[in-house]
Amino acid sequence: SRTIRLAVIPGDGIGQEVVAEGLKVLRAALPTDTKLETTEYDLGARLYHRTGETLPDAVLEELKGQDAILLGAIGDPSVPSGVLERGLLLKLRFAFDHHINLRPGKLFPNVKSPLAGDPQIDFVVVREGTEGPYVGNGGTLRTGTPQEVATEVSLNTAFGIERVVRDAYRRAQARPRKKLTLVHKNNVLVHAGHLWTRIFEQVGREFPEVTTDYLHVDAATIFFVTQPERFDVIVTDNLFGDILTDLAAAVTGGIGLAASGNINPSGDFPSMFEPVHGSAPDIAGQGKADPTATVLSVAMLLEHLGFTAEAARVEAAVAADLAERSGTRSTSEVGDALAARVSG
Amino acid sequence: SRTIRLAVIPGDGIGQEVVAEGLKVLRAALPTDTKLETTEYDLGARLYHRTGETLPDAVLEELKGQDAILLGAIGDPSVPSGVLERGLLLKLRFAFDHHINLRPGKLFPNVKSPLAGDPQIDFVVVREGTEGPYVGNGGTLRTGTPQEVATEVSLNTAFGIERVVRDAYRRAQARPRKKLTLVHKNNVLVHAGHLWTRIFEQVGREFPEVTTDYLHVDAATIFFVTQPERFDVIVTDNLFGDILTDLAAAVTGGIGLAASGNINPSGDFPSMFEPVHGSAPDIAGQGKADPTATVLSVAMLLEHLGFTAEAARVEAAVAADLAERSGTRSTSEVGDALAARVSG
Ligand SMILES: CC(C)[C@H](C(=O)O)[C@@H](O)C(=O)O
Ligand SMILES: CC(C)[C@H](C(=O)O)[C@@H](O)C(=O)O
Repeated sequence: SRTIRLAVIPGDGIGQEVVAEGLKVLRAALPTDTKLETTEYDLGARLYHRTGETLPDAVLEELKGQDAILLGAIGDPSVPSGVLERGLLLKLRFAFDHHINLRPGKLFPNVKSPLAGDPQIDFVVVREGTEGPYVGNGGTLRTGTPQEVATEVSLNTAFGIERVVRDAYRRAQARPRKKLTLVHKNNVLVHAGHLWTRIFEQVGREFPEVTTDYLHVDAATIFFVTQPERFDVIVTDNLFGDILTDLAAAVTGGIGLAASGNINPSGDFPSMFEPVHGSAPDIAGQGKADPTATVLSVAMLLEHLGFTAEAARVEAAVAADLAERSGTRSTSEVGDALAARVSG
Repeated sequence: SRTIRLAVIPGDGIGQEVVAEGLKVLRAALPTDTKLETTEYDLGARLYHRTGETLPDAVLEELKGQDAILLGAIGDPSVPSGVLERGLLLKLRFAFDHHINLRPGKLFPNVKSPLAGDPQIDFVVVREGTEGPYVGNGGTLRTGTPQEVATEVSLNTAFGIERVVRDAYRRAQARPRKKLTLVHKNNVLVHAGHLWTRIFEQVGREFPEVTTDYLHVDAATIFFVTQPERFDVIVTDNLFGDILTDLAAAVTGGIGLAASGNINPSGDFPSMFEPVHGSAPDIAGQGKADPTATVLSVAMLLEHLGFTAEAARVEAAVAADLAERSGTRSTSEVGDALAARVSG
C-alpha cells in the first residue's frame, strides 16, 4: 500500500470549484490500497489581501515534501496584474524547476472545434518552463515619466534547452508518428533562436527515427488553424509555448478542456498539475465552470506518479462523457458523472 | 501633375512575381497626370551570395530620397536564417523608423476562412515596428559549448509606445465601431507590460469616444479563432504583432491575401509596403503565387501617398475579383484581371 501526499491549491475564482471535482475523480481513480493525503493551501487573492504575501517561505518549504501539487487557477481583478502570476504561479514553477510544461492538444470525438471541416487534432506541446522571457529579468528606468525605458530579458541556456528538447524527442519517439517540430523565431531572435536550433539538431542525432521540422512561431499559428493534423510533438520556448497552447486549446474545443502539467522529471521537487484556463472571476461561484480540464490534469498527475492504468481510465471517462455530452450540467454534475465512470 | 518616386525591391522567390503584378495594378490606378518613376534594387539572396552584402550603405542613402518602397519578399534557404531578415528587412524598418506596422485583418466576401460558421472579420492590427524584442539587443556567452547562454533583450520606451498607441487611437476613432484592444502579456512581462498599459490608459484620456479593452496575447489568440468579430483596432508590441498578424491572415483566408505597411507617418523617410507572406521558394518561378496581398499592399501605399480614391478603387477591384474567384489562375492572370478592373 502506498500513500500519496498531495498539495491542493484551489486558488481564486473557479479554481475552488474545479479542484473539488478533480479531487473527486482522483479519489475514484486511485487503487483502494493507495492512501491519498491532501493538504489544502489557501493561496491567491485572499491571502494576498490579508497579509500581502503570495507564497510564504514556510508554505514553499512544506510543499517541497509533497508528492505533487494540484492547482486550480489564480488571479483576481482586485490584485494588480502580475502580482499573483509572478509571486505564486511562476514562483512555484521556478522554485521547483518545472522545466517540462506539458500541454496536450487533443480534439476528442464529439467536441466541436471552431475550425471548419472535421480536423483530427492530437499533438502535445512540450513548453520550456523555467527560462526565456519568463525569468523576470528586466526593469524600468525613469519609471512613470515620458522618458521611461522598460526592458525584458529572455535568458536561454544550453543546459535548459537541452533537457526540454531531449524530453520532447523521447516523447516523439514513443508516439506512433514520431514527429517533432521545433517552434521559435530564429530569424529575428537570432541569439536564442540559433541556440535552440543547434541543440535541437544535436540532440536529434540520438533519435534517428524521429522526423523533425522547424517553424517560426508566426507560421506555426497559421498551421494550428489550417493544418493542425500536421503536428505530433512540438517543443518550444516558454513564451511561444504559452501563446501556442492557448491557441491549441481554442482549436480543440476551448480552455474548458485543456490540461497541463508542470513537470520536474528528476522528482527532486513536486510536479504541479493545473488546467490551462484562468480563474474566470465572471462565472466564479455559480457552478458553471467545466471541471474537465482539471480532471484531465488529474490524469496527467496520475500518469506522472506511475498510475498509468488509472490515468488511462480517467482519460477514457472524459472521452466517454464528452462523446455523450448535450445540454448544460453544473460543475459538480460533470465531476460526479466522471467520477462515476471512473469507479464504475 | 505629380511624380512618385518608388523604390522597388522584388527580393527573393515569389517576391519577383508578385511585385510585377503589384506594379501593373499601381500603374493602372494612378491618375494619368501622375508620373511613376520606379527604381529597382536587386537586394536579397542573390546580392548576398555575390557580395556578402545585404543592404549596401549607398543603397540605403538612395532609398532615403524615394517617396515609398514596394517590397516583395526576402529569404532563401541558401542564406542562414536571420541574415536577410535582420540585415535587410528589419534594417530598413529600423533605419526608416517604420514605427507603425499596419496590418488589416479582413475577410472579404466569398473568401473561405478555416473557421466554421460565417465569421465577419474586419479589424486592423497596429503593430509597433521599431522596438521590443526586435531591436537585436542580445548575445551569447560560451557560444557553441554545453555552457552557452543566449539573451534577447526587449527594449521598450515611453516615446516609442506612445506614438504607436496614439496612432492606434486615431485609427479607432475614425472607424465606425471606435474600439481599441491592447494586447500584451503584462502579467508576466511586467516591466514592458505595465509601461504599455500605463501609456494606453493615459493616451486614452484624449479619446473619450473610443472603447478600450486589454487582452493577454495568449487569450487574444483564442478570440482570433472563436470570436474574431470582437476586434476593431488592435495595438500591440512588435513580436506579439508578428504572431497575431499571421494568425489574422490565416483566419481571413490565408497569407495570399494579407497586406502590410511599414509606415513612418512623419514622412522623413519613405514608408514601405509588402505582403505579409514570405518568399515561398517551393513555388517560386512557377506563376503560382497569388499577387493579391501585394496588390492590397499597393492600395495601402496609394492611401499613404494621399491617393485615397485610387486606393479604394484597388481594394474594390480585389473585393470584386475575390467575389467571382473560382478555378486556378496564374500570378499574372490575377494581376491582369485586377489591373483591368482598376482601369475599367
Ligand atoms: C497566468 C500566466 C502567468 C500563465 C503563463 O503565462 O504561463 C498562464 O497563461 C499559463 O499558460 O499557464
Ligand atoms: C521575416 C520576418 C523578419 C518578419 C517579421 O518577423 O517581422 C515577418 O515575419 C513579418 O511579419 O513581416
